[in-house]
Amino acid sequence: MNYQYIKTEQADLIATIRFNHYSKRNALSECLIEEMHHALEVFGKEDVRVLVLRSDQKNKVWSAGHDVMELPRSERDPLPADDPVMVLLKSIRAFRAPVIAMVDGSVWGASTDLIMSCDIAMGDHDSTFAITPAKLGLPYTASGILHFMSRMPLNVVKEMFLTADPIGADRALQIGILNHLYVSGELEAKTYQMARTIASRSPQANSVLKAQAQMLSDAAVMNPAVFEHLQSLRKNVYMGSDYREGITAFLERRDPVFGQAM
Amino acid sequence: MNYQYIKTEQADLIATIRFNHYSKRNALSECLIEEMHHALEVFGKEDVRVLVLRSDQKNKVWSAGHDVMELPRSERDPLPADDPVMVLLKSIRAFRAPVIAMVDGSVWGASTDLIMSCDIAMGDHDSTFAITPAKLGLPYTASGILHFMSRMPLNVVKEMFLTADPIGADRALQIGILNHLYVSGELEAKTYQMARTIASRSPQANSVLKAQAQMLSDAAVMNPAVFEHLQSLRKNVYMGSDYREGITAFLERRDPVFGQAM
Amino acid sequence: MNYQYIKTEQADLIATIRFNHYSKRNALSECLIEEMHHALEVFGKEDVRVLVLRSDQKNKVWSAGHDVMELPRSERDPLPADDPVMVLLKSIRAFRAPVIAMVDGSVWGASTDLIMSCDIAMGDHDSTFAITPAKLGLPYTASGILHFMSRMPLNVVKEMFLTADPIGADRALQIGILNHLYVSGELEAKTYQMARTIASRSPQANSVLKAQAQMLSDAAVMNPAVFEHLQSLRKNVYMGSDYREGITAFLERRDPVFGQAM
Amino acid sequence: MNYQYIKTEQADLIATIRFNHYSKRNALSECLIEEMHHALEVFGKEDVRVLVLRSDQKNKVWSAGHDVMELPRSERDPLPADDPVMVLLKSIRAFRAPVIAMVDGSVWGASTDLIMSCDIAMGDHDSTFAITPAKLGLPYTASGILHFMSRMPLNVVKEMFLTADPIGADRALQIGILNHLYVSGELEAKTYQMARTIASRSPQANSVLKAQAQMLSDAAVMNPAVFEHLQSLRKNVYMGSDYREGITAFLERRDPVFGQAM
Amino acid sequence: MNYQYIKTEQADLIATIRFNHYSKRNALSECLIEEMHHALEVFGKEDVRVLVLRSDQKNKVWSAGHDVMELPRSERDPLPADDPVMVLLKSIRAFRAPVIAMVDGSVWGASTDLIMSCDIAMGDHDSTFAITPAKLGLPYTASGILHFMSRMPLNVVKEMFLTADPIGADRALQIGILNHLYVSGELEAKTYQMARTIASRSPQANSVLKAQAQMLSDAAVMNPAVFEHLQSLRKNVYMGSDYREGITAFLERRDPVFGQAM
Amino acid sequence: MNYQYIKTEQADLIATIRFNHYSKRNALSECLIEEMHHALEVFGKEDVRVLVLRSDQKNKVWSAGHDVMELPRSERDPLPADDPVMVLLKSIRAFRAPVIAMVDGSVWGASTDLIMSCDIAMGDHDSTFAITPAKLGLPYTASGILHFMSRMPLNVVKEMFLTADPIGADRALQIGILNHLYVSGELEAKTYQMARTIASRSPQANSVLKAQAQMLSDAAVMNPAVFEHLQSLRKNVYMGSDYREGITAFLERRDPVFGQAM
Ligand code: NI
Ligand code: NI
Ligand code: NI
Repeated sequence: MNYQYIKTEQADLIATIRFNHYSKRNALSECLIEEMHHALEVFGKEDVRVLVLRSDQKNKVWSAGHDVMELPRSERDPLPADDPVMVLLKSIRAFRAPVIAMVDGSVWGASTDLIMSCDIAMGDHDSTFAITPAKLGLPYTASGILHFMSRMPLNVVKEMFLTADPIGADRALQIGILNHLYVSGELEAKTYQMARTIASRSPQANSVLKAQAQMLSDAAVMNPAVFEHLQSLRKNVYMGSDYREGITAFLERRDPVFGQAM
Repeated sequence: MNYQYIKTEQADLIATIRFNHYSKRNALSECLIEEMHHALEVFGKEDVRVLVLRSDQKNKVWSAGHDVMELPRSERDPLPADDPVMVLLKSIRAFRAPVIAMVDGSVWGASTDLIMSCDIAMGDHDSTFAITPAKLGLPYTASGILHFMSRMPLNVVKEMFLTADPIGADRALQIGILNHLYVSGELEAKTYQMARTIASRSPQANSVLKAQAQMLSDAAVMNPAVFEHLQSLRKNVYMGSDYREGITAFLERRDPVFGQAM
Repeated sequence: MNYQYIKTEQADLIATIRFNHYSKRNALSECLIEEMHHALEVFGKEDVRVLVLRSDQKNKVWSAGHDVMELPRSERDPLPADDPVMVLLKSIRAFRAPVIAMVDGSVWGASTDLIMSCDIAMGDHDSTFAITPAKLGLPYTASGILHFMSRMPLNVVKEMFLTADPIGADRALQIGILNHLYVSGELEAKTYQMARTIASRSPQANSVLKAQAQMLSDAAVMNPAVFEHLQSLRKNVYMGSDYREGITAFLERRDPVFGQAM
Repeated sequence: MNYQYIKTEQADLIATIRFNHYSKRNALSECLIEEMHHALEVFGKEDVRVLVLRSDQKNKVWSAGHDVMELPRSERDPLPADDPVMVLLKSIRAFRAPVIAMVDGSVWGASTDLIMSCDIAMGDHDSTFAITPAKLGLPYTASGILHFMSRMPLNVVKEMFLTADPIGADRALQIGILNHLYVSGELEAKTYQMARTIASRSPQANSVLKAQAQMLSDAAVMNPAVFEHLQSLRKNVYMGSDYREGITAFLERRDPVFGQAM
Repeated sequence: MNYQYIKTEQADLIATIRFNHYSKRNALSECLIEEMHHALEVFGKEDVRVLVLRSDQKNKVWSAGHDVMELPRSERDPLPADDPVMVLLKSIRAFRAPVIAMVDGSVWGASTDLIMSCDIAMGDHDSTFAITPAKLGLPYTASGILHFMSRMPLNVVKEMFLTADPIGADRALQIGILNHLYVSGELEAKTYQMARTIASRSPQANSVLKAQAQMLSDAAVMNPAVFEHLQSLRKNVYMGSDYREGITAFLERRDPVFGQAM
Repeated sequence: MNYQYIKTEQADLIATIRFNHYSKRNALSECLIEEMHHALEVFGKEDVRVLVLRSDQKNKVWSAGHDVMELPRSERDPLPADDPVMVLLKSIRAFRAPVIAMVDGSVWGASTDLIMSCDIAMGDHDSTFAITPAKLGLPYTASGILHFMSRMPLNVVKEMFLTADPIGADRALQIGILNHLYVSGELEAKTYQMARTIASRSPQANSVLKAQAQMLSDAAVMNPAVFEHLQSLRKNVYMGSDYREGITAFLERRDPVFGQAM
């Protein structure tokens, strides 16, 4: 299979997907996502015991999140459940075999949520993680926030979202984003060593374990009325001035000037 | 207090709000709702033990639901949690004292949901109840559907929503919409007799009972991911062809011609 | 075994407990409850496939609910989970075999909740059902209200609690309190006919079915913060003027004069 | 398409599936189910606005539930989520358009659960409904019991399961199994009249309404530990003596002799 | 505005509340809380993007928790949802803008729960955190325990509550109480640097993010019956000997001699 | 009392249970578990304020988990809720007083889940923790996975289950398995120092706190249909080839050769 935005390979029960679209800083554009789905579908039919998700080359940016050009300008919910990035996250979570993210650069926005949707994350000292909707005035989803809460203390989740600042590799290890942190030269070897271990375990047991953990971590239930209230607050944000200003400023490469809270 | 769309009165610990806007068939227009909120606020400060909600005069239509002119044409969620009608329902549900609906005509659309938000419903043989979003192509809210499910068998709830046809008074009694059904000449006397009974009971105990029952009936919890999936389905409806056609046909006083399901 | 407040018998896999304390109108006094627990424990060790709960003699009152003399005067939660009546309800719900209530008189207060805790209820035309905390100014429990909601439309549950008026036998059948209504002379025969049917079915399957339905009907979950808010509202009632007045008036055999809602 | 166990037709946006396997009393055998799935898949791709599920000919038995020959003899969970009948129920629930069951005979066992999985049920005076696991010593599923609880008072659900006796048409209407009851000659006309009404409504709105009501009625959440406890109770039943005896007696066409509860 | 127990200031979209009642070790007395509510209300109307909560002067004790003199002696629930401290925590959690706690001394009892109710916590090496109900024999609330569980491993939460011993600053950082730990001289600068970052982000997005995270972290649902059982256990503690002894010993400045568990 | 597989002692309100069956590497065999239950029952009647669980001697293995000889060969759910090990975990969780695990060797399989069921865990540098169902092809329980999720980031829980590799002492401290890590010579002294602290606190308050935290950490609710789907996936594993191969290979002391995922 010839892909344009990713590369794939498969050996010894281990599959690999490599981001390969550095001109767009490996952003989760619709084109790249389409190729990802294709690759996941192909691997899903093979005897794949574990999947490694990585960048083909070590670069400054591992993946830049949403392609902001593809977000609606305003007055539309920018993150409906059928947003391509949200659907990609669901596919990763639903992939039968475990997925290991191997991170050797900075991760931005929804790509950090992608890391939360992988089963395991390995990083080197250049890996950083930022979740940036507060810079764009973009109201994030409750399910996405929940992905972060399944890994980190609540106050750290809030710090990440409220400041939108990146978390460095050492702290990422300490707070629970990274499973392991290695020096750059060792990351690949250590990642595939873990992949081989997983591949030697029972794929039938592991597949159910993954599904169980997923269901349990999703299980933060709310009443419809509470949820509809939160959706209404989100609506006021994406219909409001901050989101318009945030997107505009981003595209004009300037700092946004946000208005007053509602 | 002088109201234009409603009338109010208070006697013997019993308050009454009467719809009085028959030219608009007592539709839940923003103007009428504003007066309702004012009346509820005033009564909330008085020693009111029970509130009766009724039409000032017996008419063919008791209340016509949303003023369709006030619904967004399309491409907007027509029923966000801060929609004036939704907010009115919440105020009725949160009103400290029990609310009895006294129904002597046909009830349409969101006004039927209003009946579900009252604590008790009394009717005469001219009372009918229809919930009509399927006629407009309008995606209803999960919390609203839940109001119906707290009273009726699931298959009857579905029949009401899927056919959008009115339920007559006898069946309304049998399936749990009406607490009691009386002949027209007795309805008022019987309603106020029940109101006097409630007014003679402990207002402190009743206020907590109402709050408890409300919380319990709201308690149909869902995971955020499930809810966001449903919201996304709703979005596809209000962005889609049926809603546009439904509203247009309504305003042009013709039958809608709906397209294919998505 | 010699009991003072109840009688028991066992035949053909069917056990029977008969209330036998008519001087106290079969009130759920601590003494009667203690004997009930003893009987349930004994039957629990026997090969009992179904239990019938009835009054020994047909009387005006089937059971009068709490012995009001045993309720705390005020400033104590009158219905903690370890209140003897609440514990009795739990024992009935947890009893391994199905429990059929055979009702041939009026049922009052917590005894109506006892009916809700039986698996099936059969009645004659003298059976009536009232839930009366609003007459005493007594804040009821959320779990108790939930027992009613598992059977009846929400608006009917509210009518029962808010008016505290008895529901007659015909309406009890229609709204879901009674499974069957028979003329007085047939009630006993019909009840034991159903008991024999149940006794002929698989006791292993029925025991699990009962446990499953119980768990499912309890499953109206709330957040701790919501629950603590409701408990605090309840506390304000039992620390307040209505509860003191309600109990006093009851004991002085006069109508209570309740104050204003808080 | 040529089917052997069912017949299908489609006209005016209304699809129909007819059971056509009366030698097996329209039991939900794996072969019949396979054809049902095929038909549902075909109709799912057409512009179908409503589906009617019926028996091709009016017979004594409308559908007999599981083909008992296909149940595991014992020591296996007889009702795992991937049991063909359970999967069929899920397909009906997930079918995009509303499904109306048109019932003109007796319904047994899992076929009664099938009725609960249809959106609306119409019947004539020969329709009866029995849920019979207690006759087989078969432990039913919690999700199946929940289907019944979404329609009927808890005590009636328990009566149905604990006695395993059929419910007649009149009572089925009264307790919420049937939406409407018609004399035999009118049932078909009335059913298709309702189908035409639904077909005239917005299919986009109706499809979401159905999904919402489904999610809400499934929302009876339990902790994993509670659920695993119930599963363990179920296991003791299908590993136990009653289930073995129940199946054997059924196949030997004699009454079972059940042992003692565990 | 002139306050007696606190000081407030506002500059550059950043508000600050300073505890200023060191003679009572900044205990959360009703008077101090009243001033806090006033300040929160004032700031809530201003264009405040972030709130810093701190002690005016660096002292040994940052805040001492409940004023034990204000706890009921016994036989009353000492922590109802309308306890002033519990209400203060709710106001902090509901405050529209993020709240950063800046901690430079020891934190005791309910003040540690206050830290859990702030969005972010920054500390220096003198900050310590103890949750002390086990020293007083005081039954804590489920919602309060949940605040701790949203940040820390369950076994650490239990250690904190069961030992009632303080957690030092380094461990507080490691287990998730503190977001950052700085040397004393840098704490203020670093705290306001983070505040300025947050103030530069979208206040509309941040306000919704905070509400979403709050709802999600509250979402640990329980059945009413389970909750009422826990409340009943709590009642036995506050009606029991330990609570009386704990309060008495505290006021007599001696070690308590607790009795046997119930 | 004379035990064969454990030793017990009690002093100064502190009870101790010592594993003493090193020939079986302190595996949780039915015999050892039976003695554990007896000891827990005895201590439950004494004035025990805290319980220490330890190995009598420091050995390479602290406890080896299930006795694999006692697991069903295949085609049976190997972990029903009434599995002896699962029941032991429940008894530890339900024990009235806090339980401290003192770990000075390697912990394997279900014994690691036992550590998660203790309230607090103290270790030395030889303590390691592995959860090994993936090595046996054994489908673990959702409630067991939840025990791990209450302590650790989701990605670390997944790493532990998916790799089945042991976690060393230092990492166990960092990720939240261990409360404290001490050098070997200090572990005992430090453990009993903490035990004495807990013993000096209110046993009445601590007993309720433990119950509350337990209920809250169990509160990860799921719909029955979701749960039944997961159980069905588990069934396919224990009926499948991996579980048979995993058990066989273990007993033949060779590496398993697992097949393909289903
Ligand atoms: Ni409107
Ligand atoms: Ni009592
Ligand atoms: Ni089958």
